[in-house]
Amino acid sequence: MEIILSINAGSSSVKISVYKASGDSTPEQLAEASISGLTAPPAKLDYTRGDQKTKEQELQDINSQEDAFRYILDHLTKDDGLPELAKIEDIHYTCHRVVHGGDYPQSQVIDKNTFHHIEELSDLAPLHNGPALGIVKASAEMLPRATNIAFFDSAFHTTIPKQISTYPIDQKVAKKNKLKKYGFHGISYSFITHAVSDYLSKPKDELSIMALHLGSGASACCIRHGRSYDTSMGLTPLSGLPGATRSGDIDPSLMFHFTHDASRPSHSASGHMHITQAEEILNKQSGWKVLAGTTDFGSISSSDREEDQLAFDIFVDRIVNFLASYFVKLGGEVDALVFAGGIGEKGEKLRREVVKALECLGFSLDEKKNSNIGGRVVEDIGKEGAKFRTLVAKTDEQLEMARGVLAERARLGVKK
Amino acid sequence: MEIILSINAGSSSVKISVYKASGDSTPEQLAEASISGLTAPPAKLDYTRGDQKTKEQELQDINSQEDAFRYILDHLTKDDGLPELAKIEDIHYTCHRVVHGGDYPQSQVIDKNTFHHIEELSDLAPLHNGPALGIVKASAEMLPRATNIAFFDSAFHTTIPKQISTYPIDQKVAKKNKLKKYGFHGISYSFITHAVSDYLSKPKDELSIMALHLGSGASACCIRHGRSYDTSMGLTPLSGLPGATRSGDIDPSLMFHFTHDASRPSHSASGHMHITQAEEILNKQSGWKVLAGTTDFGSISSSDREEDQLAFDIFVDRIVNFLASYFVKLGGEVDALVFAGGIGEKGEKLRREVVKALECLGFSLDEKKNSNIGGRVVEDIGKEGAKFRTLVAKTDEQLEMARGVLAERARLGVKK
Repeated sequence: MEIILSINAGSSSVKISVYKASGDSTPEQLAEASISGLTAPPAKLDYTRGDQKTKEQELQDINSQEDAFRYILDHLTKDDGLPELAKIEDIHYTCHRVVHGGDYPQSQVIDKNTFHHIEELSDLAPLHNGPALGIVKASAEMLPRATNIAFFDSAFHTTIPKQISTYPIDQKVAKKNKLKKYGFHGISYSFITHAVSDYLSKPKDELSIMALHLGSGASACCIRHGRSYDTSMGLTPLSGLPGATRSGDIDPSLMFHFTHDASRPSHSASGHMHITQAEEILNKQSGWKVLAGTTDFGSISSSDREEDQLAFDIFVDRIVNFLASYFVKLGGEVDALVFAGGIGEKGEKLRREVVKALECLGFSLDEKKNSNIGGRVVEDIGKEGAKFRTLVAKTDEQLEMARGVLAERARLGVKK
Repeated sequence: MEIILSINAGSSSVKISVYKASGDSTPEQLAEASISGLTAPPAKLDYTRGDQKTKEQELQDINSQEDAFRYILDHLTKDDGLPELAKIEDIHYTCHRVVHGGDYPQSQVIDKNTFHHIEELSDLAPLHNGPALGIVKASAEMLPRATNIAFFDSAFHTTIPKQISTYPIDQKVAKKNKLKKYGFHGISYSFITHAVSDYLSKPKDELSIMALHLGSGASACCIRHGRSYDTSMGLTPLSGLPGATRSGDIDPSLMFHFTHDASRPSHSASGHMHITQAEEILNKQSGWKVLAGTTDFGSISSSDREEDQLAFDIFVDRIVNFLASYFVKLGGEVDALVFAGGIGEKGEKLRREVVKALECLGFSLDEKKNSNIGGRVVEDIGKEGAKFRTLVAKTDEQLEMARGVLAERARLGVKK
């Protein structure tokens, strides 16, 4: 039996799931801890183990991702109900979700070389890779016996063909500065592909879907024969769909008309983090937050204030643009449209409007199913007799990483 | 009888068509003069009147749009075969193609106020409005008796709904700095709408088409019930499709990773023209020029060099993305897909690849018709029995402006 920690660090939160793996079967979750509010103290702990639940326990002096990581490790080892993890030496593997992995096509065991390379890559998306790096470092220090593995949100998209991933800019600079479409949310899309393949009993290599991962960061993905063929995010997670605080696609010259200081370092820049005012504004001061004054898409969806409706309609418009283009990219051979992510799961009205817009292609919702999503991993919400299926998937990046350990272990085994 | 000059100034060329208008019938073209190579001297004159043709006559000391304008006026008044325009006082109307017209929903007679307003607007797209402004000024000086009218490429798109034209950015800044999707090539799309409406004998108000204006600058437009409903260009002509020297859409943070000097003034900036390095690079040093080393899409299309094929495939990919989304925006109720512009008319291979990609929606080409485009304004190249029509239109922005004079005259009459 081996203990796996799946670690997912965001800009103001850290979530860690504990799994037990035996042989090659799917790892079994033992507990889950998350600390939120790192940027709005006091931080709060949520903890679940079996029926045991702690909710929003306030914590003192937890101000960084690294603090949160240390606190959770301590909490887990001290929990008598979790005898499998009594001391940190019991941890065999840690999985780290890293947003930007450049051209890495798969997960990587972290050693000095890979860590250095990941640090370099992070210059492309410092706002997004930053949170994970501190924990990766702390893991290496605190858990020297464990195998630390980086899972990249970009890895799933390394199959995107060149004519889609190439920007029409000077290719010498593009190559030197690593400027191309990478795409993100890949751990989630990988999970979704597995889950839908299982649900439809169709081999992954034959499965073609249009998938949406919609959360405070949102993206769309065209998955052809089980592989990413196009996605809405690009060089960084900024491009494509708007999000809670992100603009998504805009005219590339817009920022120079928004502020004269577009390329000046932002206040969150540092020696390691080269972040411009423009990137700060577009990633943190845009999207629903500025359109509707809230980052809560649920409240936007249920409001009839003009600015909420505008934010809602903009989101639907942009989502439908991507889905339409993916439908054509798949030549109309689509096994399913799949909604996932927090908004994908909870956004009953959003799903209704998106699918309504796609009716001319052959998608249609069953209203009753759409408003009664249960707890299963994949649920069909399509109308009976509709030409194409519409599904909702409960994506699970933590589990996808834990499963990835088995694949990594197999590769390590081969190498030995 | 009234004489109309339609003036179209580009970054290195000026084209002027002379029309004779009698009553309300379509103006008749008498002559056409164009001077090209303003940025690569010596400039060259092409001139056509009836069967009389001059080709590539080299000119000395013609270095600006204004020089070219004065030269052509002189040439026209001195042409004995053009007795209708013997002196500049014979000119009743001048039409000026102005790229960016902000929220102007229609053409505007140019007086001091409108000129000032157009100058202000030009700050949004100095690279694009610059060429016209010098000629507008010279017209007012040299032709004080003529009515000078500005026709805006953006005017056709003022019907685009808010959820499509709004960028998910701070709306206070957006309003103050006039940041929204405007769209361009509108004079051409207006012509195309008229022409296809005539060709199909379907009233404009009922006509829905997906139109492509593909030239060294390229865009796509979703026209619903005769009005623009979406288009690929945005705040400026930069966004959307790539072009001869333009990147089109990229990750909004890309430029900050391309150069640290992104928001520094470019060498072509001046007191009047605020142009950043980034805008210069993305508008002038991107697109096919840097991908394939040429701005000639014809040579790209007929080459099998890897970089040419990549440039070609990128263009097809981006075009199809927009068309797919417009198909869905029209709910599949599409009267025709229309190719126009230099590449739209000449790009046999491009049309084939684009329509092939749209086959799953019900578009299909007749190969013979596709390779035998004649001289008519609109030609049908679709396969018999295909669900949707595919057309090629010979767009004519000069004529569209000359026709616009009649509408403007009617409005002026009402005002009096």
